[in-house]
Amino acid sequence: MIKYIKIGITNYRTHGAFYGNIIHLVILAGLKFNCSGGIGRNCPKILNLHFQHLLFSMMRIKELLMSRDFESRVEVRGWVRTRRGNKSIAFVALNDGSVIHNIQIVIDMTKFDEEVIKKVTTGSCIRVTGKLTASPGKEQHVEIHAESIQVFGTADPDSYPLQKKGHTLEFLREIAHLRPRTNTFGAIFRIRHALSFAIHKYFNDNGFYYLHTPIITGSDAEGAGEMFRVTTLNAADPPLNEDGSVNYAEDFFGRPTNLTVSGQLEGELGALALSNIYTFGPTFRAENSNTPRHLAEFWMIEPEMAFYEIQDNMNLAEDFLKYLLRYALDHCKDDLEFLSGMYDNELIGRLNFVIGNQFERITYTSAIDILLQSGEEFEFPVSWGVDLQTEHERFLVERYYKRPVIVTDYPLEIKAFYMKQNDDGKTVRGMDVLFPKIGEIIGGSQREESYEKLTRRIRDLKIPEKELWWYIETRIFGSAPHSGFGLGFERLILFITGMSNIRDVIPFPRFPKNADF
Amino acid sequence: MIKYIKIGITNYRTHGAFYGNIIHLVILAGLKFNCSGGIGRNCPKILNLHFQHLLFSMMRIKELLMSRDFESRVEVRGWVRTRRGNKSIAFVALNDGSVIHNIQIVIDMTKFDEEVIKKVTTGSCIRVTGKLTASPGKEQHVEIHAESIQVFGTADPDSYPLQKKGHTLEFLREIAHLRPRTNTFGAIFRIRHALSFAIHKYFNDNGFYYLHTPIITGSDAEGAGEMFRVTTLNAADPPLNEDGSVNYAEDFFGRPTNLTVSGQLEGELGALALSNIYTFGPTFRAENSNTPRHLAEFWMIEPEMAFYEIQDNMNLAEDFLKYLLRYALDHCKDDLEFLSGMYDNELIGRLNFVIGNQFERITYTSAIDILLQSGEEFEFPVSWGVDLQTEHERFLVERYYKRPVIVTDYPLEIKAFYMKQNDDGKTVRGMDVLFPKIGEIIGGSQREESYEKLTRRIRDLKIPEKELWWYIETRIFGSAPHSGFGLGFERLILFITGMSNIRDVIPFPRFPKNADF
Repeated sequence: MIKYIKIGITNYRTHGAFYGNIIHLVILAGLKFNCSGGIGRNCPKILNLHFQHLLFSMMRIKELLMSRDFESRVEVRGWVRTRRGNKSIAFVALNDGSVIHNIQIVIDMTKFDEEVIKKVTTGSCIRVTGKLTASPGKEQHVEIHAESIQVFGTADPDSYPLQKKGHTLEFLREIAHLRPRTNTFGAIFRIRHALSFAIHKYFNDNGFYYLHTPIITGSDAEGAGEMFRVTTLNAADPPLNEDGSVNYAEDFFGRPTNLTVSGQLEGELGALALSNIYTFGPTFRAENSNTPRHLAEFWMIEPEMAFYEIQDNMNLAEDFLKYLLRYALDHCKDDLEFLSGMYDNELIGRLNFVIGNQFERITYTSAIDILLQSGEEFEFPVSWGVDLQTEHERFLVERYYKRPVIVTDYPLEIKAFYMKQNDDGKTVRGMDVLFPKIGEIIGGSQREESYEKLTRRIRDLKIPEKELWWYIETRIFGSAPHSGFGLGFERLILFITGMSNIRDVIPFPRFPKNADF
Repeated sequence: MIKYIKIGITNYRTHGAFYGNIIHLVILAGLKFNCSGGIGRNCPKILNLHFQHLLFSMMRIKELLMSRDFESRVEVRGWVRTRRGNKSIAFVALNDGSVIHNIQIVIDMTKFDEEVIKKVTTGSCIRVTGKLTASPGKEQHVEIHAESIQVFGTADPDSYPLQKKGHTLEFLREIAHLRPRTNTFGAIFRIRHALSFAIHKYFNDNGFYYLHTPIITGSDAEGAGEMFRVTTLNAADPPLNEDGSVNYAEDFFGRPTNLTVSGQLEGELGALALSNIYTFGPTFRAENSNTPRHLAEFWMIEPEMAFYEIQDNMNLAEDFLKYLLRYALDHCKDDLEFLSGMYDNELIGRLNFVIGNQFERITYTSAIDILLQSGEEFEFPVSWGVDLQTEHERFLVERYYKRPVIVTDYPLEIKAFYMKQNDDGKTVRGMDVLFPKIGEIIGGSQREESYEKLTRRIRDLKIPEKELWWYIETRIFGSAPHSGFGLGFERLILFITGMSNIRDVIPFPRFPKNADF
């Protein structure tokens, strides 16, 4: 046992062996290891000395707040949210981003150099060691009685923008480099993390493979969207052909390329080999839309499944969404409660409502009938053949069915070329999942697996067939029924956080005339 | 109980309720549910009838091959890899991408329509129901005795490119839409998935938050790399200013923008609020490098940690890499064994070697001394101040130390502006992790947290200070010691799969003059 411990210590001193290894050896040796309160009292003193530094780096405020190992010496690092008190005692609320709550640092002013304490202001970054103590206050169980304080970085009270008073979300968007330090954005980005992980976990647990589809593409998956061009040609003086068009042969890829609008087409290639795949990556739209619902750069999740028909696709979409909302409730309770109290007190009820109700499933044709018979005056008039607008979708969800709705079998003319054509000759097996507040949160379809039907549609729409040779070939070589859908990640986060502007649920939003940070 | 079951069945029939819910109810009701062999014998018959269709869709070849529920009726779907046999019996090797191994389908030719069986050729996609049976063959435990066969999609033997004979990797790159159907690429992409998940799991388990840094940026994080321009301006006839330069005010973002080369700078903003973050997203280099080690589009993982100094950064990098390799050995055994046998029989030994050895840690200055004293003739001559080339890195790792090496404290002049400057005035706290075969697999550093030192360096290098106002401001407002590193995902996958060309470890590689698929 002693041999092991010596190895650990020696290594650390000479060239910094990882504490993980050392601690592992200690655990093997049967010593008690207490993470939240230092190395634990059962450890030999010599270990305590050497390990204290190592272990401190593992303690986040999230874990400290849960600790009841009172009187243990702890170290904490973070940013000062507020400071109050008087000449003899100060109370500092410290946050390190690991959790929405702050830990209270109690400073006996008589014990510290005034010059140091002066710098402990809102926004400053400090390191504190002290005693973890049961707090007499109502708002917290534990607090730290400071024994030493080190100021890593100051924040001039006259210029630091995040003072105690509330800020508008608009103002915070202008300081996106600092807004993760606020309660609101800390909560949103922790939820964003949790849901990202939940997505990967769901698919991994269910035998789906994560496929990285390309970001730079030569094709337009939707056959519609406005796209960003990707180029290395001279911007002011591009090489031209004799007819005045750009000579793309000289561009980096030897052809015109753009940022992807969807990974679906390549996702289908994956599904037709690995059966069940999903993508989770950035997608782009160069639409000049300055709305609270649009971003030029956003993240999308696109599962694609061989052998899934439209019913299976709907089943998966419903199960997936419910899993994600349940995951949020289970793993982000504190952050959701904060956002609920701050912005939207119906938030948690709405999440539970979606989880608890079976999604209604109707055809587009039924949806149009319902809308026509509703007697409502819509801004966009309703008739068979028009695309559903958010006002229509929200009417169906919020007022008619009072639950999420999946609409299927849309008119051929308003949907993309790859959707499976129904026998009626006028509808396709598309499906949109509609949510309260959001409208469409998922769009998907069974895909057309017939070579003849697919190529006829491509020709009808005058989509350049040559560029899609690889996609079309999968309908010649071992074609199979398959389906998939796309979930806009930011729409999901909007729904889960209850925020109302999509620019507030992505760290660094991209929209017309804005690519700051 | 009966009430629950009825609800399930009714829903399924009317509008396709998800089997997940129904099965859940059955389990609650205490019935045995046997996933790999249908609904299980303890279920009432009526349930069997209704559930069979639903359950079949859950069975992948991976699970079937592990099943010992002989004589159960099963359904399987996949692509024919090979077919052999004679007039009375055929053996079909079927694969659905869930696992490297095929399942053997035994077809009694006398029981099937000749017209159907004729279409069961290499590459065709079929659905088979039949009896799961103990196989007398040595190569598999189970096989399926076909009772019904449906051909979803044929594959003309004269034109389908993936016939039984071996193909070169070069040829397979030209058919990237079909290569995931081969053993090699199935294995690689399953490993790629497993490692992606391991990365998320590692960080999630250790309290790191996944931060989506922007893909389209106005800044150049490395202050070096050639970048792809992102634009919506007219390509042939861009709007110009009076001096002949492009008028970017008219571009989508109102300024020149490009594809990110690294999420680090924005990652630092996240770490200086949430403490520990990581990115995992696409990054881009418009370098005209046609080598087996370069891609124009690749995925990168970039953790960034507040309060980490260079030693902590090295500890994390070593622990992280070892975790990932161990995860691959634990979760991708079949695929690794296949790749090892096919391409590189030292593969698994190499992975175990890295896991089992402590990484050597040396300074750049020591590395230069070792190289100078080695007596080796290097293509690129060695002297203090030059950047290490792959040949130097591999010498240190493979021949001198015979283990992974972390080199630290590089000359200021050859490293990026954001690295923490040492007191000697000539080195910075950079760190590169060097691996056998690969050379540099991780590059990172402690970051300069001093406002004065950082801005002086930015001015010395003539980096446009104005564009980085948000980055620089974090050194005024609550600055903190912090560190991070970048791991090139494809380099990691190269190392783990033993492949030698980076174009073979990403589904749809992007390189000069190539953006197909």
